[in-house]
Amino acid sequence: MTGEIHERHMARALELAAGSFGDGGCPIGAVLVDHHTGRAIGEGHNGLVQEGNPIVHGEMAALRNAGRMRNRHNTTMYTTLQPCFMCAGAIVQFGIPRVVVGDAENASSNETIRFMRDRGIDVVILDPGRSAAARNCIELARRFRELKPELWLEDWGGGPNPALRAT
Amino acid sequence: MTGEIHERHMARALELAAGSFGDGGCPIGAVLVDHHTGRAIGEGHNGLVQEGNPIVHGEMAALRNAGRMRNRHNTTMYTTLQPCFMCAGAIVQFGIPRVVVGDAENASSNETIRFMRDRGIDVVILDPGRSAAARNCIELARRFRELKPELWLEDWGGGPNPALRAT
Repeated sequence: MTGEIHERHMARALELAAGSFGDGGCPIGAVLVDHHTGRAIGEGHNGLVQEGNPIVHGEMAALRNAGRMRNRHNTTMYTTLQPCFMCAGAIVQFGIPRVVVGDAENASSNETIRFMRDRGIDVVILDPGRSAAARNCIELARRFRELKPELWLEDWGGGPNPALRAT
Repeated sequence: MTGEIHERHMARALELAAGSFGDGGCPIGAVLVDHHTGRAIGEGHNGLVQEGNPIVHGEMAALRNAGRMRNRHNTTMYTTLQPCFMCAGAIVQFGIPRVVVGDAENASSNETIRFMRDRGIDVVILDPGRSAAARNCIELARRFRELKPELWLEDWGGGPNPALRAT
């Protein structure tokens, strides 16, 4: 049952990601779901190209779309791609207790996953062997990396700063 | 000399923060400065109330205002208030090598400072004994906490999620 719910919300996040890609943008989408109703209360996609705004990653767009809330303690964030540190930091800061990830294969490390899990967040990485949505998330990000490597790098913040020591 | 430069940029961040407070918003401001020119390339203030947008903290507004960049490896972020995890995560993700903080006294812990320092970021906390801007940052945040405690809490994400274990 949980698998079906995850699949449905991830399919919507993927639809938003694919739409962004079709518009020339970065193909990452996210949906914030309320635990009580099981419904999406915010959704969005990366807006780097469309808005010229580097802080609008998929997860951030979903938080923006959900708007003001007293807290987000009863929500789950679905995201097509493993969160970067900005988005993982937002998830930690806002006390979001669960994150469901479609694609953890195209990320360069699992450092942000560890960062969230160390703070008690339940990070669910969908199994591409069992989830069609996960397979499609992985394939979409792979195509993006291949077709637009410079945009991929810009969206991740330009790559590690060589002046900062490795973590 | 560095002290004068810090003072000048922090005074501008404080001006943005005070303007936001005057408009009924959260009084946190930030300025992103280019190392080569010494000039601000982005600035802004918290937009929770004004935009109804919880992701627009001061630092995020400065990043948004600076717009698209190949990277931010030669910049310093000035912020009137110690970054939350969302903003600290953005600073880490974008490889910003230095952060100057006006007020670290009104934060509930130094966890985000440690998070950034552990990743090689030079975090400078201005000394209120020597910096008028720092004293004013501390005083402004203190007034905000006293006058609008619910808004302060909402802006920090609603407080810790009791379902997540302490860090």
